[in-house]
Parts: sequence; C-alpha cells; structure tokens
Amino acid sequence: MIAVAQTMHFANALSLQSGASLSDYHLAYETYGSLNADKSNAVLICHALNASHHVAGIYEGQDKSEGWWDNMIGPGKSVDTNHFFVIGVNNLGSCFGSTGPMHIHPDTGNVYGADFPVVTVEDWVNAQALLLDELGIHQLAAVMGGSLGGMQALSWTLQHPDRVRHAVVVASAPNLTAENIAFNEVARRAIVTDPDFHGGHFYAQGVIPKRGLRIARMVGHITYLSDDVMNEKFGRQLREAVVGSDMGYRYSTQDVEFQIESYLRYQGDKFSEYFDANTYLLITRALDYFDPARLFGGDLSKAFATIRAKFLLVSFTTDWRFSPARSREMVRALLDNQRDVSYAEIDAPHGHDAFLLDDPRYMQVVRSYFERIAHEAPVQGEKA
Amino acid sequence: MIAVAQTMHFANALSLQSGASLSDYHLAYETYGSLNADKSNAVLICHALNASHHVAGIYEGQDKSEGWWDNMIGPGKSVDTNHFFVIGVNNLGSCFGSTGPMHIHPDTGNVYGADFPVVTVEDWVNAQALLLDELGIHQLAAVMGGSLGGMQALSWTLQHPDRVRHAVVVASAPNLTAENIAFNEVARRAIVTDPDFHGGHFYAQGVIPKRGLRIARMVGHITYLSDDVMNEKFGRQLREAVVGSDMGYRYSTQDVEFQIESYLRYQGDKFSEYFDANTYLLITRALDYFDPARLFGGDLSKAFATIRAKFLLVSFTTDWRFSPARSREMVRALLDNQRDVSYAEIDAPHGHDAFLLDDPRYMQVVRSYFERIAHEAPVQGEKA
Repeated sequence: MIAVAQTMHFANALSLQSGASLSDYHLAYETYGSLNADKSNAVLICHALNASHHVAGIYEGQDKSEGWWDNMIGPGKSVDTNHFFVIGVNNLGSCFGSTGPMHIHPDTGNVYGADFPVVTVEDWVNAQALLLDELGIHQLAAVMGGSLGGMQALSWTLQHPDRVRHAVVVASAPNLTAENIAFNEVARRAIVTDPDFHGGHFYAQGVIPKRGLRIARMVGHITYLSDDVMNEKFGRQLREAVVGSDMGYRYSTQDVEFQIESYLRYQGDKFSEYFDANTYLLITRALDYFDPARLFGGDLSKAFATIRAKFLLVSFTTDWRFSPARSREMVRALLDNQRDVSYAEIDAPHGHDAFLLDDPRYMQVVRSYFERIAHEAPVQGEKA
Repeated sequence: MIAVAQTMHFANALSLQSGASLSDYHLAYETYGSLNADKSNAVLICHALNASHHVAGIYEGQDKSEGWWDNMIGPGKSVDTNHFFVIGVNNLGSCFGSTGPMHIHPDTGNVYGADFPVVTVEDWVNAQALLLDELGIHQLAAVMGGSLGGMQALSWTLQHPDRVRHAVVVASAPNLTAENIAFNEVARRAIVTDPDFHGGHFYAQGVIPKRGLRIARMVGHITYLSDDVMNEKFGRQLREAVVGSDMGYRYSTQDVEFQIESYLRYQGDKFSEYFDANTYLLITRALDYFDPARLFGGDLSKAFATIRAKFLLVSFTTDWRFSPARSREMVRALLDNQRDVSYAEIDAPHGHDAFLLDDPRYMQVVRSYFERIAHEAPVQGEKA
C-alpha cells in the first residue's frame, strides 16, 4: 500500500485549552482505503510520543518506509483498509509535518521555538475534528490509539460524544501517575538544562540540545520495555569481553561495558538526530496534563457519564508505564455508566512497547472488534 | 550516642580487582559500643550509594547529625551497641572521608579526578578487612548492609568465609538486572556529557557538573520509591493551582506544575551541592560489576559453595529496584548449599527506600536476629 502525505491548511484561529490560540496552522495527514458513500466507515488513528500521520503503507519508491502501525492497518489487516477509510493525522506541536515549534510564528516572522503554545490532548482532538469537518466526515466508525494516542481516543468520546461510535484504547491510562510525570520531568530537565537549549530558541544559534535529547530518550526507552524483556534481550552481556580479565570487564566508568548501555546510547543518539527538543517538552506536558476526571473531583465514573461510544480496551501484563490496572480503571468507570465495553489483557513480555508489536492474540482481538464494527450499521439518529 | 569520626592510614598499596592498585590511602570510620575481651562482638556496617561511615549517633553539638542508620543501630536498638561493637566504614572512592577522586594522587601531586581507579565491591571488602586487621578483629559477629551495602555483606562471606559468622543482607541482589544497569547508565551519561564535567577533571576548572548530578539524582530517586508511595505522597497534586483556570494548570513546559516535579528538583539540587560526580560514576560502576556468579557460569548455587556464614535476608514487597525475587534467588542458592538462612519479605509500601525506614516488623526481624547472635557463643575453631 502506497501512502501519500497530505496537508490541510486552517486559516481560522484554534482556541487552545490554555487560553492561547494558534492561527494559520496546518495539519499533516494521510488516508488509506476509501470513504464510503454515507461516510460512515472512517477510522481515525491517533499517535503517541514519537510518531506521526504516517501510520500505514510505504512511500513510493521507499521500501523501508513502513508506517508505525503498518502491522495493524492495511488491506486484510486487523484494521482492514478494504472496509475502512483510515486517517492518520500528525498532532500540533510535532516535528513531523503539522505546525510546530520549528515553524514560523505568523505574528513575529520568527521560528516559534519555546513560544509555541502549550497544546493538550483536548486541543489535538479539537484540531482533528476540524480536519474531519474538512474531509466531510461527521461521525467516525472508530477512533483508535495506543498510549498517548489512547488518551486522544478517550478524549474524543468525551469531547465529541456524537461524533464517534467506537473507541479503541490500547495500553493507555485515564491520566499519568506521579511516577510517570516524574520520568517526564527528568527528560524535560535534561533537555532544558542542556546549554545548547538556549531557553528553547536554539534554532537561531545553529545548535541542537542533543545531550538532553539523548538522556530523555534513554530514560523513555527504559520505561517502554519490561524488566523481563531487557533481561532476555541484553541481560548482563558485555559488548566485548576483555581477554585475560577474570570477569571480562574493562573496568571503566565511561566506556561502554554492557550491551544494554550500547543499545541505550544508540537509541539516544538516533533520537537526538531527528526529534525536536521543544516538541518533546510539549508532548510530555500533554501527557502530564491529560486528566478528564480532574474536573469531577477525580471521579472517573462521573467524568465518563456523557460518553456514548462503545469501547475496546487492551492492556499488556508487563506494561509498567501504563499498567493493566489503569485500563481496568477505565473499564470500571465505563461499566458504571452501563457502556458497552470489551477488554483484553494480553499476556505479553514486551512492556509498553507491546502495543506496537505483532502479538497474534492482540492482533486477533483488534481484528475481531473491527469485524464487528464493519458489520454494524451506523445508528441512524447519530448520523449527520 | 555521640559519634566520633576516625581515620586509618594505610601505607601499603592495595591491589584492586582491575589490576590497578591504590597506594597511600586512608579509610574514614566510626565505632559504637565496646569491643569485648575476645573481640567476638564486632559488627561491620557497609554503606550504599549515598552514605558514609557515619552510621549511627550524632556528632558533638550537632543535634541534627544522626547517622544514616541511626534508627537501626544504637543502645537498645535492633543492632544493640550495648552488646555489639559496631563499625561503620566509608568506602574507597567516596566523597565523604576515605580516599577518593577529590584527593591528591600521590604519584602526580594532582587531584585524582577521573584518574581514580575503578573500585569494586570486592576491593571495598578487602580494604574493610585490612581495617579490621588494624583494629585487631579477626572475625566479625556479623556484617550487615542494605542495597549496595548488602552486596558487600554477601561478598564478605565469599571472600573471607572464616572471618564472618553472620551476614545480614537487606534489600539487595546477587547482581544488577539490565534495567538497573540501564538506569545507572542514564545517570552516568547525564554527568559525563555535562560540559562542566571536563572528562572528570573539573576541579581544576573551578566548576561542578551540577546539571548532570541533578539528573542522576532525579533518576535514582524515582527508582528508590514505589509507584504506590509516590502516588500517595504526591499523586497529581499541583504545587500551586492557578485561580481561574478550569484545571488549575499554568500550561507551561518548563515551570514546576506538579508537586512531584518540585520534590525531584529539590532532591536533585540538594544532591548536586554535596556529592562528587566522579564518586557517582565509581559507585554506580561497582554496582554494575558485582556479580559473584559470573565466574561460575551464572550458577549462584555454585558460587555460594564456599560460604560458611549464616544469613538473614530481608526484602520489601514494593522494592522494584532490588525486588524480593532477587533476595529469593540468594535464599535458594544458600539453601542449595545447606546454609542456615532466615528470610523476611516485609510488606511495605515504600519501595527500595524501605530499608532505611522505621517499619516495626522490619526492625523486629533484625532485632530478633541480633538477639540470637548475641546469645550464640562464637564457634571455637573459627576464632583467631
């Protein structure tokens, strides 16, 4: 399947949750499959931290350019583009196409940098809704996402209850725990205190806060994997055992000694080459801020009272960043409101990263759910 | 109880596991209680990352100067200094008194800095044994430590099986997992890539790599606490809710928003004021390197075959850095060798930090064990 990136321009200012607004912005997006005549087969895919609108397929002539959820979405796949019109959209504030900190602030003519306004999950959802308006889609057959993308899917059902029939929320949570916020804060401090950050206006200086980005990615990466899978993949293996040393150690505090160090350094280096530091701050903050129960005194069941969508939730047993317990909180709150909920807790060793991987039970659960959606006629009263 | 810091000088070079050696060094130590006539009541306390020889008591005229395990050790306490002669010793490479990177290299006349040799748990134990020689103590009634200190206690029973009757190993592990090494590596990279680190020779530049130390401490601190206790202590509380904002948020990527951020920044700032960056590298590497089963193909039971000491092991249910499963590995390997083992798994919410806190069941387990030691006559054949 060949993917084609598109861009939609928006001239009207978008009011943000913070009170600020964003004028003259654009959203990068891709679509796969065909919109049916009554426009009832659209599925919106929301992305997490390090992803984009390029959800599925490859770009013409670029064999290795698979979208980040290409194992899940495509012709004959779990989310079958022979049946569904799938939309991937890049979030505001990203560094992969939609308007973000690396773009020009129309009011000043300078690059936004740290002046790009704080955007929230709710803001992203509102921007996505405007894109759907432009595409002539009133109601989504489903909105789907993992991790931070799952938060957006959930937020859709709260902000636009009449515009989404199903929400598929994978490896997500109704808010971040203190520990999650703590890891985000470590990453942010590493970036912000990098002398090359220059208060977020480093573009003009011709430098990039790569030290901070590397640390941020290393911390993040540890939390995406399970202890078990790290032990299985790397354990205590040395990169290169020293011949003649009893233990094989180099006895160095700064050289790479263990394979896990080599792997993490590589991940950090790679990330620092392509990810924008201001985007990292914005996206981790959107994660921190998401908390739909907050206005209801922390009562998730009350917060969910206006939800009309049906749900599939999926969690993974070894995911300690967005643990199954957090998914169960959402299941409980939905059941408290007599919503239609399916829930699968997948026994997978891969930690949070499992939501991007090819576990056959996971793929089958999603496939079955989308087959159900495909056979369901849209509720008449809810159509545009 | 008034503590008095002492120093022992060693003129003979100490051969290190790396092949390097350390000449003309000193060890800072403290003692509490009195050594009995046959010198059979000595208890050595080994310290973890951020601690020292100041284990118990206070310094004259300094009310707030309690030792780091003062809740555990003292007259009438779990480790009762009315019965036992307790020794606290600062490890080589530390920044709290014993010879370390901030001291002068006798061969060059310059501060060691990054040239301080890599020291291992085994090296520390050997240095501690030399201190005991100077104090005229052949055999310890017990060696005790938590976390990295527990590794030293274990190492004592392997390196000097005839010199220790009991080992008390709290919240420890027979080696670090890949995840633990990964967190250490993040901390080290944060320090080493701080422009103020200057390859470990920052003292001469009049700067301190505080950015890196702050990040290192923040990462460390997260791993010392449990997710539960973080949620209980901080949850999603804001430092200062903004009046007039629905959610109370400031909507900022760089300001402190949540209490947990404020707490972590404070911990990082405080740590960066007193802890030495080179010491941090050395101590985390000693943690990474400890692995007594390595020379036995990973078989801990084989590695433990020469152990003669009796053991008390204690772990804490919510400790995910040194989990109960790691303590159970040691219990199993000791039982495989028909050793005398007591094991307590304490249901405590505080994570790894629990080993420093006042859980009454924990304190009672240790008290009972030391009462048993106090009533036991030393085995005749094992006396000097």
